[in-house]
This record gives sequence, C-alpha cells and structure tokens, in this order.
Amino acid sequence: MRGAFITLEGTEGVGKTTNLDFVCATIRRAGVEVVRTREPGGTPLAEEIRDLLLAVRDEPVADIAELLLVFAARGQHLAGTIEPALRAGCWVVSDRFTDATYAYQGGGRGVDEATIATLERLVHGNLQPDLTLVLDAPFDSVASRLSGRTRDRFEREQRDFFERVRAGYLERAAELSRCVTIDATQPLDRVQADIVAALAPLLRGAGER
Amino acid sequence: MRGAFITLEGTEGVGKTTNLDFVCATIRRAGVEVVRTREPGGTPLAEEIRDLLLAVRDEPVADIAELLLVFAARGQHLAGTIEPALRAGCWVVSDRFTDATYAYQGGGRGVDEATIATLERLVHGNLQPDLTLVLDAPFDSVASRLSGRTRDRFEREQRDFFERVRAGYLERAAELSRCVTIDATQPLDRVQADIVAALAPLLRGAGER
Repeated sequence: MRGAFITLEGTEGVGKTTNLDFVCATIRRAGVEVVRTREPGGTPLAEEIRDLLLAVRDEPVADIAELLLVFAARGQHLAGTIEPALRAGCWVVSDRFTDATYAYQGGGRGVDEATIATLERLVHGNLQPDLTLVLDAPFDSVASRLSGRTRDRFEREQRDFFERVRAGYLERAAELSRCVTIDATQPLDRVQADIVAALAPLLRGAGER
Repeated sequence: MRGAFITLEGTEGVGKTTNLDFVCATIRRAGVEVVRTREPGGTPLAEEIRDLLLAVRDEPVADIAELLLVFAARGQHLAGTIEPALRAGCWVVSDRFTDATYAYQGGGRGVDEATIATLERLVHGNLQPDLTLVLDAPFDSVASRLSGRTRDRFEREQRDFFERVRAGYLERAAELSRCVTIDATQPLDRVQADIVAALAPLLRGAGER
C-alpha cells in the first residue's frame, strides 16, 4: 500500500527541526518506515537548486525565477525521492512542500495564487500531503532564535516579509482540511502533544493502508 | 525606441558561435548597439542554472525539473539582461531562446507543447523575438564537429534525440513568420549571405525604431 505523505510547515525559527525529529520518531515507534526529507532539496540536483535559491547575491532575483527554481527542485524531489518512497509503502515526512510556496512566494513575494496553482497542477496535480502540520508563532517570539544564525537570502528578509509569510500559512491552513495549525509558542511538551494528536488518525489507519 | 530582439537557434555543431559573431558584427556595422547573450544563461544566476542543466550526472533528471530550470533561467535572463537592454534601445542577439525549449524539451524529451506554452505565457507572454534564425543541418553533417568536444548532458544524447530536436525546430520554423531557416550545410559565405538577407528588413527599419 502507498505510504502516507506528511509535511511540516512554518516560518524560520518556529522549531521545525526539533519537531521533525519528533514526528519521525513517533511514526517509527508505530512500526512504520519513514523517509525524512526537505524542500527545497531532497535529491542531489534538488539540493543544488536549494543552494542557488538560498545564496545571498548582489543580483536581484526575479520573482518568477525564484518560483520556477522552487518548482524545478520539487519536480526532481517528487520523481527521485517522494514518489518512489510512497510507492514502496514508506511514509514520507518533508520539511516544507508546496504550502511553503504559497506562503513565501505568494504571501511573501506577492506572486499571484493562480500562477502558483498552475505550477502546482503541472508538477504534482494528483499528489497532495495527507497531513500538514503548520507550526505557527508570531515574529517577535522567534526573532531571537534567528539572531545567532548566518542568515540565508530568505532569513535576511525583514519583519513585514515574515508577517506576510505567516499570514499566507494561516490563510492556507484555514482553507485546507489536511492542515493542522499548532501554536509553536507553547512549551515543547504541549507542542508535541498536539503533534501526537494530529498524527493519531493516520497512525490508526497505518495497519489498513 | 525599443531595440530589436534576435535569436539564433539550431542543434549542436551547426555553427552557431561563428554566425553569432557575424550577426553581431553586421548589426554593429549598421551603427546599432548590440548586447550578445545566450541561453540558458545571460546573468550570473542564470549561468549557475545553466551549469546545473548541462552537468553530466548519475541522477536521472526529471523532464519537468529540466523544463522548469530552463524557464527559471529565462525569467532571470529576461528581467536582468534582455528587457533592460531592449528598453535602453539596444538590440539583443541571443544564442537560443524559447524555440530551443520547444525543440529540446518538446521534440527531444517529449514534453507536451501545451505545457511549454503555459510556461512561455507565464515567463514572457508579451515578448517574442523579432527575428529568429534557425541554422539547420542533418545530424550526419555535424556529428564530426561534436566528436572532438567534451560533451555536456545534452551533447551526450544519441542520434535519435538530435533528429527529434531538429524536427522540432523545423516544425516550429514552418509555423512562425518570425523564423528564417538557413541551410547550414552551405559554404560559410552562402550561410552569411542568407543571414544578411534575413537581417536586412530589420536593419532598414533601425533608423525608424
């Protein structure tokens, strides 16, 4: 049976890495094999595209070029990693997927939603995540976590960019039943209790898949 | 006044480089400023995308990833080089443009034309070349020119790939009035006489642009 596809979304600094570890460990404890991956990236070529996207550069990057690079990496990621793993019955847990494009390139950059939807149909019309966990926190509660990092081209954006990205995520999560928004300002044990609750229906179904 | 946009197309080994020099020299002799550029490439980021596209790699490259990388580079090239030059009144001469995508990714890889057309509209709906010179030669007459080169990911393709690419170019040239097909198996002076004839109407109009 086809594996489940789970994505974790959220702006910088909301604790995605820690919680990805937790999601994968929770699924493995249930006896299910997990492939953990990320976007942009997830195959050698897609990781090279990621490097192009994140590099700080003097040249202004055209919105359409950024958008198409994101979807190029995604097409490769789907063909090379996600789809083979799902077909083999593994579950796939990805640090970001197309919801991030609606949030960053849509909300953040202002690319219109119809353009993103056109590319989404072209690249993965028939495949959507089974569950998307949106870790949400206001900018002020995460800004301090970013201050120590060497910032990439996205992390160098200003507060209003992050606020548009966050709003993009919240808007999308409100529209889609597969999305569960989790308050990332809670203590970690509460965040993870919410994650366990969100995973429970899928894990109950794991035997039947 | 906006400059003219001229593209040179053709499969590997048809003599594009020599004839690009000639096209640019012919236009400059008429007193018009020319920006010479190429695809994929033409800006620092777009050249980095070119490197990703041409690199020989173990990982199979998904057709959709290749296609989106080509258009990502094109979006950047248009925003960073082609459109500013045309607006400044320069003529732009590009070694390949979107006709190459119809020939290579469409004819060569088998991506359907409607998908390419969707991306074309997204990336440069309103901008098309004023003149496209398609240098045409059968595979056997150019194969020997390729044998001495270190071949990139496209040049390593087999004969039937090049024949599909060539057919893609010829089909497109037959449909579009801006395309002039030039027999590249002729002696160079005849090829260049054909180029001069093709450029003449644009150059006559140069004073009026």
